[in-house]
Amino acid sequence: MFQYILERQIAWGDLDAAGIVYYPHYYEWIDTANHLMFDAIGLNHTILLQSRQLQFGLVESRCSYLKPGRYLDKILVISEIEEIGKKTVTFKSRIVGAEDGSVLVEGMEKRICIDASNPKHLKAKDIPEDILAILREKTAV
Amino acid sequence: MFQYILERQIAWGDLDAAGIVYYPHYYEWIDTANHLMFDAIGLNHTILLQSRQLQFGLVESRCSYLKPGRYLDKILVISEIEEIGKKTVTFKSRIVGAEDGSVLVEGMEKRICIDASNPKHLKAKDIPEDILAILREKTAV
Amino acid sequence: MFQYILERQIAWGDLDAAGIVYYPHYYEWIDTANHLMFDAIGLNHTILLQSRQLQFGLVESRCSYLKPGRYLDKILVISEIEEIGKKTVTFKSRIVGAEDGSVLVEGMEKRICIDASNPKHLKAKDIPEDILAILREKTAV
Amino acid sequence: MFQYILERQIAWGDLDAAGIVYYPHYYEWIDTANHLMFDAIGLNHTILLQSRQLQFGLVESRCSYLKPGRYLDKILVISEIEEIGKKTVTFKSRIVGAEDGSVLVEGMEKRICIDASNPKHLKAKDIPEDILAILREKTAV
Repeated sequence: MFQYILERQIAWGDLDAAGIVYYPHYYEWIDTANHLMFDAIGLNHTILLQSRQLQFGLVESRCSYLKPGRYLDKILVISEIEEIGKKTVTFKSRIVGAEDGSVLVEGMEKRICIDASNPKHLKAKDIPEDILAILREKTAV
Repeated sequence: MFQYILERQIAWGDLDAAGIVYYPHYYEWIDTANHLMFDAIGLNHTILLQSRQLQFGLVESRCSYLKPGRYLDKILVISEIEEIGKKTVTFKSRIVGAEDGSVLVEGMEKRICIDASNPKHLKAKDIPEDILAILREKTAV
Repeated sequence: MFQYILERQIAWGDLDAAGIVYYPHYYEWIDTANHLMFDAIGLNHTILLQSRQLQFGLVESRCSYLKPGRYLDKILVISEIEEIGKKTVTFKSRIVGAEDGSVLVEGMEKRICIDASNPKHLKAKDIPEDILAILREKTAV
Repeated sequence: MFQYILERQIAWGDLDAAGIVYYPHYYEWIDTANHLMFDAIGLNHTILLQSRQLQFGLVESRCSYLKPGRYLDKILVISEIEEIGKKTVTFKSRIVGAEDGSVLVEGMEKRICIDASNPKHLKAKDIPEDILAILREKTAV
């Protein structure tokens, strides 16, 4: 099974007034890991958009928060592809402490394949076969 | 039924490289609306924390994305309390175009009442009766 | 003299762990005010870029911090054009308390006119005469 | 001479609608590098605040932008202490491409030592001798 792992250290600017991570940052890190995963398997977003007028647009995101992240914590964002549909890809992510592996956040992003040839009229389309093949190769089961 | 409505205009800095809102910003706006709603009904977070050692910590958040937000769009973030449990409060939010009312995002936040008297050992607790009374008064049903 | 004024209320997500505004947010607000000012005087960034391949790219920014912004403070970002060169425009901004007018931040942005007809080889160019005329009309002296 | 170096890769969420880094992020990274530098030399912000009621509050920040950062660029934020006054410390930072060393941004932060024993009446104070000694040891000259 393919996993993409992003390392980070929690910075001063990531905290809220209670001294714990302000939660929209978790989505930034999950989004970053998922973008980098696509790049890593040969599906660079910029190239998909420019050479094939394809985007994987977000339809849903979700996080559960189990333990707060604190200043200077070293964390790992561990992402995998959980499910592939005709038009959609679902990513699953866990954010864990780099030292003790304790889970801070469990999250997901669901993306849909979009024909962006007309930027003002984006519409969903089936994931092309060659991209499906790459995604399937990287999926758990 | 009580609704809190936050007005915003989408700024240059809210956009991603595809020219649409970078999605963690939607969570920032929903979180802002929900904080302001609590203030508006007499449950200021700073006061709850300092005078009663209480916090409403996030346990889950979720958004569905129906239509992308674009530069200079005027939007409304419309939040309400959807459900009240013994320990938890669930907020429901819609982000809509201020002019045509079209829905961009449907989101939720679920928060749990926390005893923060020891900041290093936060623990869940029942929502105190006086706060429950305020919340129930503001809920849909 | 032309001033663009942006109103905001400081949100929970704008704070750092010391309970005061995390300073990069001040730059976001100044940038937003300056973009909206350009729109307000007929120099929409998207239109300039798409119909004339022009951008006003940032060359310098600066802020002095006089007083910290705190949760729920209502503030005004007051921007004006301070100086116009052959190729550059300098904006001056003050961020003040909406109620007492006390100054929180004094900031500036200096932007240079860029020929963006080749996105990979951006180069500085003189500000076109018609745009200069608009800018001069809006400047202090 | 002491330098603190922070490595980063530019992420999708760091970009603006023109596909280059949205500039407030540069301040976040410079601020992060300077916080980590203080931690690295034994001046952890949280400890200073909690055990000695001291903060180093920002009085000024500035950046010059020489070259835009783009998606996936690997960059280094290189920070040093440039000047130490009786009450103030000035940091100098360069953000460079990790591969070719080309300079994207030159920035600075000036911070002042603050007596935070009363959070509502922060006031400037001389930097204590033991902290001055640490800072001087780490400075260029």
